[in-house]
Amino acid sequence: MKNFDKVNVKQEARIELHDVLGLTGAEISINTLPAGASVPFVHSHKQNEEIYAVLEGKGTAEIDGEKIEVSNGDWLRLSPNAKRQFFASPDTALKYICIQVKVGSLEGYTMSDAIV
Amino acid sequence: MKNFDKVNVKQEARIELHDVLGLTGAEISINTLPAGASVPFVHSHKQNEEIYAVLEGKGTAEIDGEKIEVSNGDWLRLSPNAKRQFFASPDTALKYICIQVKVGSLEGYTMSDAIV
Repeated sequence: MKNFDKVNVKQEARIELHDVLGLTGAEISINTLPAGASVPFVHSHKQNEEIYAVLEGKGTAEIDGEKIEVSNGDWLRLSPNAKRQFFASPDTALKYICIQVKVGSLEGYTMSDAIV
Repeated sequence: MKNFDKVNVKQEARIELHDVLGLTGAEISINTLPAGASVPFVHSHKQNEEIYAVLEGKGTAEIDGEKIEVSNGDWLRLSPNAKRQFFASPDTALKYICIQVKVGSLEGYTMSDAIV
């Protein structure tokens, strides 16, 4: 496998990077919910931790029935079994990243995994 | 452990989210290199795949000696052994995310891991 891959993400409703970049440790999607829209279902996961980052706009994350206001610069970690649904605000689109990784899979990182 | 954690990332040179959010499957940093600056060393990894996303600005990723121009919206996957160094352009700061995950650690994802 090539040592790296690159893609440029244009404005689109949703793109999934796993196959585009040949990812092996994560799936990553970049998503835009139009103003007033929501992900159309509540979901949780079997074994994946999810990390969400809000890039633009604002909205609400409903997590286990709790409403969390989110906006640009917010990062969230969700345990696999958290029941989640994302909503854009009525007047602003919500652009966000969703990163799926296997819970507990990270061993060393940064200085303990780096070779400088 | 709580089912979720949230943090808002303000403009800063670098923040690491592993401990802030209690991540178990990834380390994620958000970084800003001022115009003309670079990460001060070349590095690779023992077992972590890295995924970079450019949020703002432009610069150069030097990967195994190859210069790759990067700008807003670019996503890169790097194999652990790729030798890498990032440079902001001379006149524009480079703001980017770096995601570390264990290579080969992802099993199911999206529909095969979701409970809807």
